[in-house]
Amino acid sequence: MMRLGLFLQGGGHHIAAWRDPDVDVNGTQNLAQYIKITQMAEAACFDMVFNADTQATFGADDINVWRHTTGALRLEPLTLLGALAAVTTRIGLVSTATTTYYEPYQIARIFASLDQMSGGRCGWNLVTSAAAAEAYNFNRATHVAHAERYERAAEFAEVVLGLWDSWEADAIVADKASGLYFDPAKLHFLNHKGKHFSVRGPLTVKRSPQGRPVIVQAGQSEAGRDLAAATAEVIFTVQQDVGEARAFFADVKRRAALLGRPPEAIKIMPGVMPIIGETIAEAEAKLDRLQSLIHPEMAVRVLSAFFGMDLSPFPLDGPLPDAEVANTEQGRQRVIRDLARREGLTIRQVALRIAGVRGHRTLCGTPKSIVDSFEEWFHSGAADGFNIMPATFPAGLSEFIEKILPELRRRKLFRETYEGTTLRENLGLPIPISRWVG
Amino acid sequence: MMRLGLFLQGGGHHIAAWRDPDVDVNGTQNLAQYIKITQMAEAACFDMVFNADTQATFGADDINVWRHTTGALRLEPLTLLGALAAVTTRIGLVSTATTTYYEPYQIARIFASLDQMSGGRCGWNLVTSAAAAEAYNFNRATHVAHAERYERAAEFAEVVLGLWDSWEADAIVADKASGLYFDPAKLHFLNHKGKHFSVRGPLTVKRSPQGRPVIVQAGQSEAGRDLAAATAEVIFTVQQDVGEARAFFADVKRRAALLGRPPEAIKIMPGVMPIIGETIAEAEAKLDRLQSLIHPEMAVRVLSAFFGMDLSPFPLDGPLPDAEVANTEQGRQRVIRDLARREGLTIRQVALRIAGVRGHRTLCGTPKSIVDSFEEWFHSGAADGFNIMPATFPAGLSEFIEKILPELRRRKLFRETYEGTTLRENLGLPIPISRWVG
Repeated sequence: MMRLGLFLQGGGHHIAAWRDPDVDVNGTQNLAQYIKITQMAEAACFDMVFNADTQATFGADDINVWRHTTGALRLEPLTLLGALAAVTTRIGLVSTATTTYYEPYQIARIFASLDQMSGGRCGWNLVTSAAAAEAYNFNRATHVAHAERYERAAEFAEVVLGLWDSWEADAIVADKASGLYFDPAKLHFLNHKGKHFSVRGPLTVKRSPQGRPVIVQAGQSEAGRDLAAATAEVIFTVQQDVGEARAFFADVKRRAALLGRPPEAIKIMPGVMPIIGETIAEAEAKLDRLQSLIHPEMAVRVLSAFFGMDLSPFPLDGPLPDAEVANTEQGRQRVIRDLARREGLTIRQVALRIAGVRGHRTLCGTPKSIVDSFEEWFHSGAADGFNIMPATFPAGLSEFIEKILPELRRRKLFRETYEGTTLRENLGLPIPISRWVG
Repeated sequence: MMRLGLFLQGGGHHIAAWRDPDVDVNGTQNLAQYIKITQMAEAACFDMVFNADTQATFGADDINVWRHTTGALRLEPLTLLGALAAVTTRIGLVSTATTTYYEPYQIARIFASLDQMSGGRCGWNLVTSAAAAEAYNFNRATHVAHAERYERAAEFAEVVLGLWDSWEADAIVADKASGLYFDPAKLHFLNHKGKHFSVRGPLTVKRSPQGRPVIVQAGQSEAGRDLAAATAEVIFTVQQDVGEARAFFADVKRRAALLGRPPEAIKIMPGVMPIIGETIAEAEAKLDRLQSLIHPEMAVRVLSAFFGMDLSPFPLDGPLPDAEVANTEQGRQRVIRDLARREGLTIRQVALRIAGVRGHRTLCGTPKSIVDSFEEWFHSGAADGFNIMPATFPAGLSEFIEKILPELRRRKLFRETYEGTTLRENLGLPIPISRWVG
């Protein structure tokens, strides 16, 4: 079965979504709308909702450009997941949290707690901070270097996984008569002492109903792939082209196999923004209307941010310049460069394409053509599923549910009902055993 | 009108509550129960629920003693507030978060976000970490010294308040036609550079519906009182005696007045555990039954932790030894010492008294005697209200609502309905104006 995630994003994933007549301009900070969307996704049996994060107004050094977007505003995603846990019962709840500026005890505790509150439905998207602007909010004058971020992330993950094993599943005795609440032999101190962290433990949250939260990752650089192969159970990836997606898929699963992990232990889910029409022309007209709402100066700015260099001095209708690989989202830079080369696009064309949905793939078509594409990717080893990024909320999601899901189900590609109550059960992932058992 | 907070705490505030036949032994980590209790408190028009926090299993170096309690387990309180925000509409939502181990950008963002999600009903209990065990989970071999913690806390508060002024109330223009989302002149960088923190801002969350979250504090030491006088709007305090409570109340309001703050700008709310009976004897029997469930070794351990020295070598039935003031909860040590002196108690007696409800006041009586005491404290300048700590959940809360609230209302001491929709409106606190306006 194909995995489907719903990527949450204010009023929609298209950068100009807020200008659509039907979109709530306060969508980025409107809890009622997040609840409504998540409950729609749950009724449709999506595997999970996913919430990205940046602890800074990215690009805030040029606020005049960014004033055309809602991108400077977002809810803090972990407290938002808490809210969503209270009003859902089956759907997975996944959020980004950076290893660069949190402490591992905090992250272990927050996700363990969300997993208790949701009955075992949480996932942690383990990232290193890509936005230099975050450094300025965390006592630094410069961005942390790529290699150091990944080194810290690997140790961070080790600590978090260790803390999640603090309490064995049957540690809580709770014998009212004798007064024994837990068995001390089944509570474990971590006593981690490493290069970046020193953490004694134990965690103040008991073992998760799904063993531990699901580990999600998104990095596409060499270091990101290695970390994902070692620890990720879900990968949210940016892929524009089925051939490159297959190569990425094969590469990550090969790296994982070298570490003794079977291919089904990692679910690879590229992001995709579907634009659905009764005809291809209708879908393209819909996309054109949204694209026409993007301010071109802003589009170049978005592209510059993803590309890691300022592109504004270069001619808008000329080619993308060659550039050094910058210290930010290296994997995404490669995808952008490959896209420009493959289709011979100018800076303006790439900028509009990338700005629309932040480098992710736009899939414009009829229900049949879109499901054909999903099926091709799914059956040819390019994807285990997709992270759906509706251009607008809630309309883009309603359309997907009404027009795409029935066709996916007709072809037996997507579930009719949830398999279980935890995210691991629904994703078909095993429940990890504590390191202290057996 | 008297202010009433409801202090949340697993299966109840009495340390042996979990052994009560009617209490859910998983109460500490049971979201459904937290939701039920909070909705009960909202239906009864409590000003707020309050969630304490420690980022460690306190006393975990002697786990064999602590195995008799649920104290090693708690939900992460900020994601829990997120959950409660989704299922309530009027009650205030307050949680502790430490300035010692978080970063100010994180705390500013989390509480600003909770304030958006709840429509302006949040409060932050600004504390410095009292538990040495937290240090071991945050890369330290020793507890941070008292003076350094308060110095850091003062700068931390300054940064958080500054970040909450990032967006002016009318900064969001959201003009779909022109494409202008916000007015850059009304978005402000903080550019804080201090001894402990360097934070550029701006925050990624717009201005709160109540201006900014309410600031709550609990410190009773000299440094704690100064910080509270400067920044607190609500103070949760530990008071055993009405005379001492009056002295504390007068002292804090005097310190605040020196800084130009009127007395009504700070609401002082001592914690109290009511034990309600039809007769005094019935109430005392109820308390005795709960006290009999406390393991004496554990009681001494709890007292040692609050007192900042190991009391186990001293005779159980002898007096409390004189001691240096330790680097932890200095104010509470003084309260304990005064209690022992005033009533001539032995270590065992103090230990059982303190362990029962962690140093807070137990108020054992009939509805009339309890309301008489509330009224005396309220009318004699000892309290603006109380932070209610039911011995057991949900029964202790139901009893309070059914037996105490009607008598309070008959005497016109407590509201019949909420005055407004934000926590500030309900507490009668002004909405702060941004530093950038006017």
